[in-house]
Amino acid sequence: MRDVAIIGIGMTKFGEIWEKSFRDLVAEAGAEAIHDAGIEGAEIDAMYIGGMSTGRFIGQEHLGPLAIEVAGLEELHIPSTRIEASGASGGVALHQAYLAVASEAYDIVVVGGAEKMTDVIEMEATEILSSVADREWEAFFGATFPSLYAMMARYHMHKHGTTNEQMAKVAVKNHANATLNPKAQFRREISVEAVLNSPMVAEPLHVLDCSPMTDGAAAVVLAPMEKAKDYCDKPIKIIASEQASDTLSLHGRKRFDSIPASMEAANKAYKKAGIKPSDIDVAEVHDCFTIAEIMAIEDLGFVKKGEGGKAMDDGLTELKGEIPVNTSGGLKARGHPIGATGIAQANEIVLQLRQEAGERQVKDARIGLIHNVGGAGGTAVVHILEEI
Amino acid sequence: MRDVAIIGIGMTKFGEIWEKSFRDLVAEAGAEAIHDAGIEGAEIDAMYIGGMSTGRFIGQEHLGPLAIEVAGLEELHIPSTRIEASGASGGVALHQAYLAVASEAYDIVVVGGAEKMTDVIEMEATEILSSVADREWEAFFGATFPSLYAMMARYHMHKHGTTNEQMAKVAVKNHANATLNPKAQFRREISVEAVLNSPMVAEPLHVLDCSPMTDGAAAVVLAPMEKAKDYCDKPIKIIASEQASDTLSLHGRKRFDSIPASMEAANKAYKKAGIKPSDIDVAEVHDCFTIAEIMAIEDLGFVKKGEGGKAMDDGLTELKGEIPVNTSGGLKARGHPIGATGIAQANEIVLQLRQEAGERQVKDARIGLIHNVGGAGGTAVVHILEEI
Repeated sequence: MRDVAIIGIGMTKFGEIWEKSFRDLVAEAGAEAIHDAGIEGAEIDAMYIGGMSTGRFIGQEHLGPLAIEVAGLEELHIPSTRIEASGASGGVALHQAYLAVASEAYDIVVVGGAEKMTDVIEMEATEILSSVADREWEAFFGATFPSLYAMMARYHMHKHGTTNEQMAKVAVKNHANATLNPKAQFRREISVEAVLNSPMVAEPLHVLDCSPMTDGAAAVVLAPMEKAKDYCDKPIKIIASEQASDTLSLHGRKRFDSIPASMEAANKAYKKAGIKPSDIDVAEVHDCFTIAEIMAIEDLGFVKKGEGGKAMDDGLTELKGEIPVNTSGGLKARGHPIGATGIAQANEIVLQLRQEAGERQVKDARIGLIHNVGGAGGTAVVHILEEI
Repeated sequence: MRDVAIIGIGMTKFGEIWEKSFRDLVAEAGAEAIHDAGIEGAEIDAMYIGGMSTGRFIGQEHLGPLAIEVAGLEELHIPSTRIEASGASGGVALHQAYLAVASEAYDIVVVGGAEKMTDVIEMEATEILSSVADREWEAFFGATFPSLYAMMARYHMHKHGTTNEQMAKVAVKNHANATLNPKAQFRREISVEAVLNSPMVAEPLHVLDCSPMTDGAAAVVLAPMEKAKDYCDKPIKIIASEQASDTLSLHGRKRFDSIPASMEAANKAYKKAGIKPSDIDVAEVHDCFTIAEIMAIEDLGFVKKGEGGKAMDDGLTELKGEIPVNTSGGLKARGHPIGATGIAQANEIVLQLRQEAGERQVKDARIGLIHNVGGAGGTAVVHILEEI
């Protein structure tokens, strides 16, 4: 398999974007990525698009040809494939596109992700989101997405002494980072007190421990590494792309203080890239809830299992910390338009490795990691990128 | 890229299977395919699963880990990816899995497809199915899936003189074939008169011109060709796997008497395989409506454009005809559990090329074609298989 690089990125502003349709968002992110890569539409060999529950949010499945039509590329009849993997839809789409380029099946591949979540009422959105959990054995009995993560949080608190304050600090950090990201949904700082005093969603998770409902789209352009320099000055090489699975249900797991699929994907990715966790300069991790980021920094090996809470007290993952995490604001504050998230994470890491992240730039960032999770951990994808 | 073979097949009975859940169906088809391939679960490197609107039919997205949990393979943490491409979900899943094996990313890959459609009422099912058409510009204004194909039928009749009787003969042939298929949904013969006298759905398409609502699942096992003989006596080689796209909408097309994506995928596949349409011994084509099979045999080059109707009068595609089409009974009579259909088609062609198709065996069939379409033609996939 040959080496693959990201040669272009694009992303809409994330938020409640009532004035734009799903198509508008896909078009905007895709056009920006194609422009950034400096390619013509006719050079594109294939497209992938991640979307979670567009069939329910906007009554639209079959996103592959939708992306083709939006791009005006129907005359080319190139393959365009929709991937669904819950919150990891974007990351899995990126992995599949990576395989397609690495295999020499295609050269130039555009990978997008999009979701429009704010066209339905909140109650309905919660019901839709529970369709990525185990419907038969969890959701039918009332388990919602926050409640599944709340159980993981409770167990983590019980086993490792993690506190509400430590979880709150994840939200505080990510909101602070988002103030520096013009495309983020929430560009305001919050305090630990604000998190702890916000309404309870599923004990111990308050509303400010939860990522929001978001509209948005993101895209990246892939090319074989040996051709990447023809297109752009700063191709970012994908030095590992690994996908792992676990039970759909949470109750089927043997442990509840981690996402085992994250550990599996990360370990394989480090091995493939020939690096250690301490070699990572910057990471975007899947903070769908604050507890998820604490588990993630443990599962990815940035700290030992059980020490994620303490890492928040120590400021390890802050913008000026040892290993900055979620410099974009993360799912919590940049926003979480589900199918787009994995690709938005790739946008952020590419910006960081290009040294183009503006006020939130991590100095001399050279190796970055992307961690994207689906559901309660049924899917996890880890990509490691390097500036060559 | 290396050569890839199908080493195992499995499929549930298709029909209104109220006594089995979606999981039961996935488990049954998967277990049969794994048993047929003679592999152990622990040998599987990755899984792909096609499903169209499971989020709406059964409230369940995130089918990748569902398949892992059903298979009891969670300890392996292998990648498992859900593909959605409307009616072509199965075919696109097969194409992506083919790329994954051909690229040497994985060796043994199980590809499944499933849909459980009869747990919702018919009105709701029609609404769900229209989510694979263009929601904003077609479905919102009342276009249903049958009505889009009805417009194509009207145009085909106008331009090429195709008749209601010729379309009815597609249904008559496929029902006759299904009487010989123990797994088919409708195992009874029907007459041209019965089709023409059945209730009108969208003029000129009667209810017996339409494929039914079906529950079912199917699976195949892929392996690198060079290892296939270690597993089974009769590996069936995939000599071409091509996917093409077009506009999501029907109104965006330049022609309405064909599915251009089918022509594109077929032409690429013939070129890749180094064969002509006349080399095909048996084919499963996407007869979601009777007019779709007439367009398909034209688009695939079995007859010239406009001569599909006449081919039905001549019996060209009957079981004893020159090129038997839909020996399984097709979508019309074997049934069309949407995500499963492309994989069920692969099951049939593998049976035919193994000379194991029983009463419906096409004598000395050596090269077979699979044609799977999504929506009103936004996606098309063509696979060509050969018995080596």
